Amino acid sequence: MKVVFALDLGGTNLRACLVDSEGNILWRKRTETPRASLEVLVDRVGFLLKECNQHNNCEIKAISIAAPAALNAEKGMILKAPNLPYLDGVKICEILEDSFKLPCFLENDANAAAIGEQAFGAAVGKEAFIMITIGTGVGGAIFVRNEIWRGLDGTAGEIGHICVEPLGVPCGCGSRGCLEQYASTSAVVRMTKEMRFKYPESRLHSRLVFSSKEVYEAAVGADELALKVFEKMGFYLGIGLASLINVLNPEAIVIGGGGSNAWDVFISHTREQIQKRAYNEPAERATLLKATLGDDAGVLGAARIAFEELF
Amino acid sequence: MKVVFALDLGGTNLRACLVDSEGNILWRKRTETPRASLEVLVDRVGFLLKECNQHNNCEIKAISIAAPAALNAEKGMILKAPNLPYLDGVKICEILEDSFKLPCFLENDANAAAIGEQAFGAAVGKEAFIMITIGTGVGGAIFVRNEIWRGLDGTAGEIGHICVEPLGVPCGCGSRGCLEQYASTSAVVRMTKEMRFKYPESRLHSRLVFSSKEVYEAAVGADELALKVFEKMGFYLGIGLASLINVLNPEAIVIGGGGSNAWDVFISHTREQIQKRAYNEPAERATLLKATLGDDAGVLGAARIAFEELF
Repeated sequence: MKVVFALDLGGTNLRACLVDSEGNILWRKRTETPRASLEVLVDRVGFLLKECNQHNNCEIKAISIAAPAALNAEKGMILKAPNLPYLDGVKICEILEDSFKLPCFLENDANAAAIGEQAFGAAVGKEAFIMITIGTGVGGAIFVRNEIWRGLDGTAGEIGHICVEPLGVPCGCGSRGCLEQYASTSAVVRMTKEMRFKYPESRLHSRLVFSSKEVYEAAVGADELALKVFEKMGFYLGIGLASLINVLNPEAIVIGGGGSNAWDVFISHTREQIQKRAYNEPAERATLLKATLGDDAGVLGAARIAFEELF
Repeated sequence: MKVVFALDLGGTNLRACLVDSEGNILWRKRTETPRASLEVLVDRVGFLLKECNQHNNCEIKAISIAAPAALNAEKGMILKAPNLPYLDGVKICEILEDSFKLPCFLENDANAAAIGEQAFGAAVGKEAFIMITIGTGVGGAIFVRNEIWRGLDGTAGEIGHICVEPLGVPCGCGSRGCLEQYASTSAVVRMTKEMRFKYPESRLHSRLVFSSKEVYEAAVGADELALKVFEKMGFYLGIGLASLINVLNPEAIVIGGGGSNAWDVFISHTREQIQKRAYNEPAERATLLKATLGDDAGVLGAARIAFEELF
């Protein structure tokens, strides 16, 4: 059986999986992402490969990596990895190929997730769609004519940095009012803190530390503050998506990442803004889909890329 | 010599040109666009064709039309033409082919303008760019991998309907705060009227009726009100373009339409917002270019389409 050793190199966790061509995960292991140096990372990959081989009897045909970075996929080179700066400018594929004598492939994590969802998840059969990943930040990817559109420098798909409020909240990217500042899980926590003084009855009113998941649970329990926060999140997400629908007229919009778990408390507000703001025909065309692969989207996408390149 | 009879079917003017494969316009005629019925339009096309033939000695190989409409280019069918409702649902190519025994091609006017600029104008050699047309409204088109991206329903490219001010000015499209409400020539006039009470010294302060061209002339003459209006226009245009740069990472952005003539009084404000708001690498990549074909972009694009299809 042909299998690929797929890695999702997150800012926090390094997830390794053995994946077959049907998208079945035959083995998986999660460790912390090495933050020290490139040498430690390569050593860790070797360790994971060895452990994988001990538990499995398949012949690994390639290594494929999803990385949180601006990169050149063709050259297998990381350009800029804000969370793992030791990777900046590194030809990671060349290094891993030399070390492990296996072909190596590289893709940006948001693109890999979109490729994964198209191959095995919510976007099967979709040739032109937008993937938006709601996590600590908001990432994205764009499929056009059945292929990821990477842009001239590989930086396309930064959907989290569409401006939805011109004089809004300052963003880490240097701009203000970016979608990420209203629709990410960190934005959910921030907005709850900003708004809680108006809601003395809320269970979150006097909590010092809480997670976006707790805000979601409060919303499910009909907490007025939490419901208002997700209304605001859904409102701005709808504004950003309506603009994208008018510009790109896609077949579908796939919403993934941890934040998409709050789907039932924000999506109606998102739909409302899309209906109000986008042209009718493209708005009806663009089905909103919840991603189905969860945390596995990146590794499955990375594996898919390797299978497509190899066979 | 091979020539194409190209038509730009505007809401106001119907422009007919005889175009060779190098983009030379050998003959041209402008008439008012028939507003009565399809029959009158077909009759007018016949009249123009006859007049063209009287003045020229070339063999016309095709008719090609740029139309202000949502349409299906492949089927040669107009879906919806807000300014010429008698065309809604009409297979215009079939009708003209039957009437004049010539192959007929059809394209949306904004797409045709982008194709024209790529073939003969500012975007020669660009394979991934955005065209934005500033007129009474704001139109647009997107080139990806050397081809227009029309979207699933042919409605992609509605750059004028990116939201740049969530609770902003109501827009004819049904939304509010669309780019068109701040960056079109009609927006320039409206914003001047809104703001003039604060500028009693302005030459536009007590004028009842004026054009965007007059606001531009005032700006060139250092009129404070007019300069403020173009600052606002450039600001919002920059916000919209920064979002597009983050999402699409294009090679260039071509700005055309009558409003682009005010380039020197708004472009610095646009650049400022792009620099502040878009990621550095794609912002530096995306050259801002002034369209060079003026009102001929549509006919030249239409002609180009016919030459590409025929030869």
